[in-house]
Amino acid sequence: MWNKRELQRKIEEWLHEDIGFGDITTMSTIPEEEQGTGILYAKEAGIIAGLPIAQLVFETVDPSITFVAKAGEGDRVEIGQQIAEVEGSARSILTGERLALNLLQRLSGIATRTNQYVQAIAGTKARVVDTRKTTPGLRLLEKYAVRVGGGHNHRFALYDAVMIKDNHIKGAGGIKMAVAAAREAIPHTMKIEVETESIEQVREALEAGADIIMLDNMDNERMKEAVQLIAGRAVVEASGGVTLETIRSIAETGVDVISVGALTHSVKALDISLDLNQRKR
Amino acid sequence: MWNKRELQRKIEEWLHEDIGFGDITTMSTIPEEEQGTGILYAKEAGIIAGLPIAQLVFETVDPSITFVAKAGEGDRVEIGQQIAEVEGSARSILTGERLALNLLQRLSGIATRTNQYVQAIAGTKARVVDTRKTTPGLRLLEKYAVRVGGGHNHRFALYDAVMIKDNHIKGAGGIKMAVAAAREAIPHTMKIEVETESIEQVREALEAGADIIMLDNMDNERMKEAVQLIAGRAVVEASGGVTLETIRSIAETGVDVISVGALTHSVKALDISLDLNQRKR
Amino acid sequence: MWNKRELQRKIEEWLHEDIGFGDITTMSTIPEEEQGTGILYAKEAGIIAGLPIAQLVFETVDPSITFVAKAGEGDRVEIGQQIAEVEGSARSILTGERLALNLLQRLSGIATRTNQYVQAIAGTKARVVDTRKTTPGLRLLEKYAVRVGGGHNHRFALYDAVMIKDNHIKGAGGIKMAVAAAREAIPHTMKIEVETESIEQVREALEAGADIIMLDNMDNERMKEAVQLIAGRAVVEASGGVTLETIRSIAETGVDVISVGALTHSVKALDISLDLNQRKR
Amino acid sequence: MWNKRELQRKIEEWLHEDIGFGDITTMSTIPEEEQGTGILYAKEAGIIAGLPIAQLVFETVDPSITFVAKAGEGDRVEIGQQIAEVEGSARSILTGERLALNLLQRLSGIATRTNQYVQAIAGTKARVVDTRKTTPGLRLLEKYAVRVGGGHNHRFALYDAVMIKDNHIKGAGGIKMAVAAAREAIPHTMKIEVETESIEQVREALEAGADIIMLDNMDNERMKEAVQLIAGRAVVEASGGVTLETIRSIAETGVDVISVGALTHSVKALDISLDLNQRKR
Amino acid sequence: MWNKRELQRKIEEWLHEDIGFGDITTMSTIPEEEQGTGILYAKEAGIIAGLPIAQLVFETVDPSITFVAKAGEGDRVEIGQQIAEVEGSARSILTGERLALNLLQRLSGIATRTNQYVQAIAGTKARVVDTRKTTPGLRLLEKYAVRVGGGHNHRFALYDAVMIKDNHIKGAGGIKMAVAAAREAIPHTMKIEVETESIEQVREALEAGADIIMLDNMDNERMKEAVQLIAGRAVVEASGGVTLETIRSIAETGVDVISVGALTHSVKALDISLDLNQRKR
Amino acid sequence: MWNKRELQRKIEEWLHEDIGFGDITTMSTIPEEEQGTGILYAKEAGIIAGLPIAQLVFETVDPSITFVAKAGEGDRVEIGQQIAEVEGSARSILTGERLALNLLQRLSGIATRTNQYVQAIAGTKARVVDTRKTTPGLRLLEKYAVRVGGGHNHRFALYDAVMIKDNHIKGAGGIKMAVAAAREAIPHTMKIEVETESIEQVREALEAGADIIMLDNMDNERMKEAVQLIAGRAVVEASGGVTLETIRSIAETGVDVISVGALTHSVKALDISLDLNQRKR
Repeated sequence: MWNKRELQRKIEEWLHEDIGFGDITTMSTIPEEEQGTGILYAKEAGIIAGLPIAQLVFETVDPSITFVAKAGEGDRVEIGQQIAEVEGSARSILTGERLALNLLQRLSGIATRTNQYVQAIAGTKARVVDTRKTTPGLRLLEKYAVRVGGGHNHRFALYDAVMIKDNHIKGAGGIKMAVAAAREAIPHTMKIEVETESIEQVREALEAGADIIMLDNMDNERMKEAVQLIAGRAVVEASGGVTLETIRSIAETGVDVISVGALTHSVKALDISLDLNQRKR
Repeated sequence: MWNKRELQRKIEEWLHEDIGFGDITTMSTIPEEEQGTGILYAKEAGIIAGLPIAQLVFETVDPSITFVAKAGEGDRVEIGQQIAEVEGSARSILTGERLALNLLQRLSGIATRTNQYVQAIAGTKARVVDTRKTTPGLRLLEKYAVRVGGGHNHRFALYDAVMIKDNHIKGAGGIKMAVAAAREAIPHTMKIEVETESIEQVREALEAGADIIMLDNMDNERMKEAVQLIAGRAVVEASGGVTLETIRSIAETGVDVISVGALTHSVKALDISLDLNQRKR
Repeated sequence: MWNKRELQRKIEEWLHEDIGFGDITTMSTIPEEEQGTGILYAKEAGIIAGLPIAQLVFETVDPSITFVAKAGEGDRVEIGQQIAEVEGSARSILTGERLALNLLQRLSGIATRTNQYVQAIAGTKARVVDTRKTTPGLRLLEKYAVRVGGGHNHRFALYDAVMIKDNHIKGAGGIKMAVAAAREAIPHTMKIEVETESIEQVREALEAGADIIMLDNMDNERMKEAVQLIAGRAVVEASGGVTLETIRSIAETGVDVISVGALTHSVKALDISLDLNQRKR
Repeated sequence: MWNKRELQRKIEEWLHEDIGFGDITTMSTIPEEEQGTGILYAKEAGIIAGLPIAQLVFETVDPSITFVAKAGEGDRVEIGQQIAEVEGSARSILTGERLALNLLQRLSGIATRTNQYVQAIAGTKARVVDTRKTTPGLRLLEKYAVRVGGGHNHRFALYDAVMIKDNHIKGAGGIKMAVAAAREAIPHTMKIEVETESIEQVREALEAGADIIMLDNMDNERMKEAVQLIAGRAVVEASGGVTLETIRSIAETGVDVISVGALTHSVKALDISLDLNQRKR
Repeated sequence: MWNKRELQRKIEEWLHEDIGFGDITTMSTIPEEEQGTGILYAKEAGIIAGLPIAQLVFETVDPSITFVAKAGEGDRVEIGQQIAEVEGSARSILTGERLALNLLQRLSGIATRTNQYVQAIAGTKARVVDTRKTTPGLRLLEKYAVRVGGGHNHRFALYDAVMIKDNHIKGAGGIKMAVAAAREAIPHTMKIEVETESIEQVREALEAGADIIMLDNMDNERMKEAVQLIAGRAVVEASGGVTLETIRSIAETGVDVISVGALTHSVKALDISLDLNQRKR
Repeated sequence: MWNKRELQRKIEEWLHEDIGFGDITTMSTIPEEEQGTGILYAKEAGIIAGLPIAQLVFETVDPSITFVAKAGEGDRVEIGQQIAEVEGSARSILTGERLALNLLQRLSGIATRTNQYVQAIAGTKARVVDTRKTTPGLRLLEKYAVRVGGGHNHRFALYDAVMIKDNHIKGAGGIKMAVAAAREAIPHTMKIEVETESIEQVREALEAGADIIMLDNMDNERMKEAVQLIAGRAVVEASGGVTLETIRSIAETGVDVISVGALTHSVKALDISLDLNQRKR
């Protein structure tokens, strides 16, 4: 669901960051006509995300490279398993390798982590969603990796949904006035979410007509109470310090959505390598 | 040592990613004239990096905002400690908050991690350096955070130093030929590093006139042997799977430089928050 | 609610389109130090929209220009009424004049037209909204002018709300499947609108859980029937060939929203002029 | 005569305005492999302009789309007549449809209007030309549509010809001095036009050596007099409040060129639709 | 007559070319607070051009720098003469020095050369003009330097005047048809120049109504004949292999304009240096 | 060793500078379907550089053009010798001609000049290298041309090597402190060069551990002394006012590198022309 043209422009910039005026090592040591076959393989088990992006990196470096995925996007791979094969000019493969790996490792790290959260609440009705705590410049890709890992997305940015927090409530003079002001300003095609810290605020948000009510850092008892109070009249989102240990009990309170900042703000790269066999043409 | 003009352009792009055509919540709920004072404080102990960048974020959102650092760049802060104070339009502070925090948390996470590695080898002559395993689009900032944390940088990109690896050696027909080809192609102002996997290769690299010799995944005994063989005629770099547990013993082999990919490829954000007090003007 | 930084970049491009390497007439005939006072005034009655944009045009041409609005954004002005006063370098005023007027005339034309539709349904509960039939490159400004004229906006683009039309229904295998597929793919913060052409389709959309139901080119009787069937369980939008003559009777069917393509696709510029008095400094 | 590379870059931007990070409706409801055939047809009679631009829009969205024009650029079409056929991925056609139509409708609206003016003066020697009152960002396309409709262009911008108006005359100290100053500053390859409001000014402009003399808001008698006075020694242009009703009598005064702002500042879009038949591949 | 905004963007790019991620020498050796006064002086006699551009370079590097010109744009300077004084941060002055000098030396080189040609034909009525043989990316600046040196400009580019050469004549089927085709296609505000190689072609161009007739590589006798034939009915331009030795005799044939490619295609930089005195603040 | 993607973007900009909204002459006089064969040939003897760049220019104008080099990059050509053949649309060839020639002439001029310097020191061990006195925006191409002519490059920019000059030495408090400060700040992969003006300074630089020592404007005797003192412990570079007359004697002092600003700051274009034969298709 990401936009290919936008992505190509970003890849061009990232390649510029790493290559600048040229990969001086490769240009001076590898003959121009030398061919190679590179194998991308997992050095760690996890969920693979980013294969189409890695492919686009190599194709941007050199349109004559062929990239064949050996695993499906979202597949779980084991240590040593082949993920993709890339074939073409040895120079081009070496020049694109680092960016392709940096992206693939990061996105697979996110998908792997997301999937652990999703597995942890299997059987409940709740969705695991991300936040805006993403890496600057990589938001769309990171949110894509969350989906590949089985999660869902929260709003993309400040422009595609209203999220009324503490300071907005104070600025507008109360939840009711904040929701009314937003409703008047935004298209009828947009939703309004209100962040609440007490059952009292949940009630106010409900009366104000919020489409989504976020329960911020509430304990599970409070959340159950809120879910019963809301009774399907708004989407219920749990948020705040969610961990792999706590997520199942949160899901069991009956909330619809659980948002987890750690999906994207603290990523452990999945270890993936490229082995190149080169040959004279 | 980063370039302010370049950075401003990136910040504009990142703000666009998060704000797009507008922060619809803030615009519709917070009065335009409302003022505020925001306090950035640590929710976790660590090394702070990125204060000038956070300042530039707020100033780009709104040049009339004032930002006063309460901690020095590179300082260790404790839980609850104030890091900075930002004052001005409440709307502007809320709109810039997320990007400022996303950057500050990430860079402080890198500086904190780097500093642990640097402390671990205190008293030895070795430098801790980063790699090219950085986040696409953020390389200069991440390498800056490494320096703030007390580390040093490896080459910035493919264009500012020669690094001859396995595939380059094969492509050129041996270490000697690879070094010679690179030396002829590059300016006399650039250095050549050769990656070696055996004492035999170390010897070859030395004879070829390499400026830097990387010992790739060698055990400590082999590294000591290499250091003695090289005897100051080239810079010696250790690389491969370095951890906080192993780095001290590696440093004690006498190498000059130890490169650590995990400084940037798997970052745990340092937890930092912004508390805003708003008031009518 | 539009983004100032984005707008400045566009104004730069538009100035480049009109000025290129220089306003050769002004540069060669008007002395550099000559000052002037320009009066913008209406040559036709209507609603003024775009004053802050016109101001930004002049300030971009020359930051030392002062621009004082003599009418409020959204005010109705009569023939001959002064709208704004611009003061500064005569060269700069002449060079920025055309772009400022082209924008102001167009946006005021949209606000004026929109306001006629809004007046026509005064007292009903319906909103007049725009469509995606905007001028390429000017969408945000044109949607802003609709708001200035008293209208509201529909979705901004293909990315901020789901709108399921005939072809999407066929592609997904029915309304129910289309809504379900979209609901699974999108964030919980986004809404789904379904375009319907019969009461039968309205019923299907309602059962599928659509947030908004568009009644496409239905007659008023059919719309009344739909409004009763939906009974507040979804927002109801009327669409298709709406004119100033027909809009009141449509609003009286009880729909919530009426979308009008002509607000933006066929704009009559409001006639506005600039008179410059120049003087030696 | 427009530049294809420039146009492609603009189309990319306009697609971004409408698509952003993705057409979420189409992506989630239409299978990726689904094919379709779209027919563009006229819902109103008029002159078609913009077919190559619409083609470029679809090809930019998806290079595998084929676009076959069914009418010639500049042809008059009748209600219901097919204009073009577009074939390929159903997703791509739906995603590009709006921008293609927005451009085609607007440019055809301009060509249709222009053609009415051109027909109105058929048999006279005068040219109908446009002005700089174009939509910001669309000038080259709008001027192209004027040509397609049988009109001609005035200068493109402030940089490609000198146009001395009232304020320039005052700034330079008279028509003679203004023309002399401009002649000295500009290349010998450029022309100078002077705007005149009286026969006296016409005479001055003629003596000053103006290449083109504009008669601004003169009545027909005055214009005849001016034409006789000028007697072929300069191009004569009539300007100011020209309508379809008045243009023929203006042309019959013997002027060479008649400029009409309404060709571009107040455009009624020509109604054009796209019908898509989709099928599984 | 050049556009300041455009120029600033170019200077940003050129600074990026030279500075990239930072001037590592200056950043690591010069204290941030160190101030300096730099004197720009001539090491060779010539005409100075580019002072406002050099000023813009320093101001772009650091807005707090002050730049005071000690010579006027277009002045002749002698060896050792001071040209400008620049004061502010020592770091900023050193970082901007190279770009400022590279531009100033090149533009002064062009102005100096142009002035020699202009002096050589003093007293005749002919203009010395440049060509399109400029450095890619620097055309506007180089054409500006020609004007500073006392010369005039030819057309700026392919879009602002018609120049019909040999191949265009063949393509159109003769001079008459080429001029007619161009006249029909272009605005009435543009001129048509025809390149001729014989008196016969001059006659054809004149009959076709060319505004400018270029005499390409004709000897002086032939040019005199052409001037008499044309007799003021078109501007006459001499072109082809013009040198400082031959230009006077060419001017004396009575031509209006003499175009000289060497003004810009083979530039000898004027030798200019910057001496910096630094001090602790 | 230059980056093709970067270059394409620059060529687009340069084409825009020359073509803007269109080559109005060619568009209006040459039939769209007309084909042509253009021959690029030398009108002067010299070293050819820039053929791949000229090819890229034509391919960017029109991807269907074929370009066949008739000489090798770096070959010496004689007067009248064919350099390349370009075949395709006559319009496209004419539109791209000027930019292709402007680049080819300039780069060949640089290669030709460089080669004279290289020939002059044939048999010595010294390298001829360029400086940062390049044309803004063209540095990579000009440095490429130096290599084609048999020379080598100095550092590319301020970011890829340290060059400590007079002002840096003063700022840091001496050569020793300047080298130490730089060494601490930069990666171990970068070199440090120190500019010296006396034997005393050479000694200091050597003791400070400089990698490269530049002898600035020293006479040959002093340089010999410096070479003996340094004795291979650093690269030795001669610099300052080097001419074709003096370079051999400088090389014979035993220096490793001789830098020559005139290679790029004062370029005489090599005279190259394009002859087009056009034909109806």
